[in-house]
Amino acid sequence: MFKEVFENMTKSKPIIHSITNYVTVNDCANIILASGGSPIMSDEIEDIEDVISFSDALVINTGTLNARTVESMIFAGKLANKRNIPVVLDPVGIGATKFRNDVVDRLLSEIKFSVIKGNVSELKFLILRVGNTKGVDVFEKDITNVDNLQSNINLFKKLSEDTNSIIVATGEIDIITDKEKTYIVKNGSSFMGKITGAGCMLGSVIACYVATNNDNILDSCTFAVSAFGLSGEIAEQNCQGNGSFRVALIDNMSTFNYEDLKGGMKIENY
Amino acid sequence: MFKEVFENMTKSKPIIHSITNYVTVNDCANIILASGGSPIMSDEIEDIEDVISFSDALVINTGTLNARTVESMIFAGKLANKRNIPVVLDPVGIGATKFRNDVVDRLLSEIKFSVIKGNVSELKFLILRVGNTKGVDVFEKDITNVDNLQSNINLFKKLSEDTNSIIVATGEIDIITDKEKTYIVKNGSSFMGKITGAGCMLGSVIACYVATNNDNILDSCTFAVSAFGLSGEIAEQNCQGNGSFRVALIDNMSTFNYEDLKGGMKIENY
Amino acid sequence: MFKEVFENMTKSKPIIHSITNYVTVNDCANIILASGGSPIMSDEIEDIEDVISFSDALVINTGTLNARTVESMIFAGKLANKRNIPVVLDPVGIGATKFRNDVVDRLLSEIKFSVIKGNVSELKFLILRVGNTKGVDVFEKDITNVDNLQSNINLFKKLSEDTNSIIVATGEIDIITDKEKTYIVKNGSSFMGKITGAGCMLGSVIACYVATNNDNILDSCTFAVSAFGLSGEIAEQNCQGNGSFRVALIDNMSTFNYEDLKGGMKIENY
Repeated sequence: MFKEVFENMTKSKPIIHSITNYVTVNDCANIILASGGSPIMSDEIEDIEDVISFSDALVINTGTLNARTVESMIFAGKLANKRNIPVVLDPVGIGATKFRNDVVDRLLSEIKFSVIKGNVSELKFLILRVGNTKGVDVFEKDITNVDNLQSNINLFKKLSEDTNSIIVATGEIDIITDKEKTYIVKNGSSFMGKITGAGCMLGSVIACYVATNNDNILDSCTFAVSAFGLSGEIAEQNCQGNGSFRVALIDNMSTFNYEDLKGGMKIENY
Repeated sequence: MFKEVFENMTKSKPIIHSITNYVTVNDCANIILASGGSPIMSDEIEDIEDVISFSDALVINTGTLNARTVESMIFAGKLANKRNIPVVLDPVGIGATKFRNDVVDRLLSEIKFSVIKGNVSELKFLILRVGNTKGVDVFEKDITNVDNLQSNINLFKKLSEDTNSIIVATGEIDIITDKEKTYIVKNGSSFMGKITGAGCMLGSVIACYVATNNDNILDSCTFAVSAFGLSGEIAEQNCQGNGSFRVALIDNMSTFNYEDLKGGMKIENY
Repeated sequence: MFKEVFENMTKSKPIIHSITNYVTVNDCANIILASGGSPIMSDEIEDIEDVISFSDALVINTGTLNARTVESMIFAGKLANKRNIPVVLDPVGIGATKFRNDVVDRLLSEIKFSVIKGNVSELKFLILRVGNTKGVDVFEKDITNVDNLQSNINLFKKLSEDTNSIIVATGEIDIITDKEKTYIVKNGSSFMGKITGAGCMLGSVIACYVATNNDNILDSCTFAVSAFGLSGEIAEQNCQGNGSFRVALIDNMSTFNYEDLKGGMKIENY
């Protein structure tokens, strides 16, 4: 069925509307193109209604919030819900500041998200309301490994139930879960944490796949996480450092065919 | 005469003021530097008058508009007209949303543009007021090829007459035209559509050349289109995907000399 | 003692809060990561207090100011002073516009900066109040060389005295000085001026080192300038133009160990 997910993506060219941060917005646009989608970034409230009318998915990323764009996020999310196109939330920095927490609470209360993607610290905060208060990186102790895998999965199943969203928790082992079914993915590279925007880019890749597989969100997210992780794995082998890793990461996403992916994907039912 | 266009550019270092989108602004700054210019990005209305006073050209790009920056665009454009420095319009996404259409109408009514550059769908919308309603990409059927070349040229000649601007219409075949004279350019790479910012970067390159050849806008635009396209052609041969294509595109623009260009430019009078 | 500066940096992972321009913000985030720090960009005033509470240094960069973010800069700077974490000022474009001059004057009057970093034209303007009115680049005649080295040092010692900040003046020869002690650094590459963001990135690298060596700002700045310059020197040898220079610059910063650096640093007491 992952083959179908991939083929649905490649035969269309979904338009992905992103209201996102200005740090990694260029990377997000480029990874959407590399994945086969078409990016549009628009955060002016007057522009939103028309943009949503022809978009196939919406990404909301809280990396660099401001009062003006928060209103655009809310407005866009509601319209996307009305049109029944998937909405992906990337709650960057949740847990780090009260402002971000409040905005994400408001987003969650007013918008139905198909997918919530974050690192483990961000997602744990969403459910436990304690934790990460040290910037935008994951806490070392939170990173999913064999020891905390089951307890993290349990938490995220609960979060999925509470939010009615698919949860994508990135880490050494990635967890993709809804209330019932869970995948874990073991693709990826430690370089992902050494460049800015790897997480934001993954949110964008997920949006491409769910846009074209709206009836199969769990598999779409899993495929996106694995493909992006594999892209990083291969990039790591051919890079001379952080700069060339980023270039190779985008290169790989843009050249993959299904056979390349099939050979490298490390997806397990859990 | 293209040699003169190139030499006028390389012997000065024009300052290019851009009010542009936050998605590709870094690419635009880098391609201006690679072309031999000096970029300054400033969109705060209080800063504009002084910036225009020492700038050699202004680029207005509508990729991520907001109410605040629209006023800065209008103000900057009027001042640039008063100083008689060239103004380049890149109406990104026109036709896709009413907000963008309204802003571009206002820009066109209050500012005289030396050059309007866009893909064929965007430019056709400007004259026919119907068309593109699917994001920021060109419609497949609009891309200039041998079949629709003459009809597209006729349209853009009319647009040039209506706006009193040189029209640069990018595509498989690029069209550069005023009311009377037309060039077509056959340089370029399909990778241009696979990265974000290729169109925005071309607007910036054009600004560099017209800034230093204000009395010869048509040839300047043609030269810029051909040089940038050739840069892409060579980049395509040496890249491993979208990421390294972008790097090579900027590399090539930064290292070209006139002899390199002369051997590869595919410019025809039409 | 430079070894200690480096080790203090590598054994912690300082969080660097930046309120900076949208042109080079991605480069700044990536170079902070490449240096071993953790970037957070936040310019919404409601978000600032919490972000400063866990940050180890603050960078204020005036590249693309607007009325909203100026207030955030002032607020963040004051809080950083209260917490006694270092604040780095990069007064991009000072001298070019009255708006930038006024903002920088206000920043200097309300915030105590540990470091002020700029090109010679920018810094000369700060003390002489005449000079640079041509965009964001240094004036040719201002670039520090053997002839004007002593007179530039004298000026910057005076500026250090007036502001109670360490002064970092970049150029062919870099000057790092306080009232009493001066280093000069001869690392670097002419390509630094051919890409956007080299100056902004250096401000970010400095912030990483001073964050972790707050009791030894002068040496930290000197080390940062030399390491970043050396990174550029090596990048120049392996690049094919401006695009690949930038990639290699970030690669080198991300892979240096102390032995690499020791062999290449060109630091002199003056």
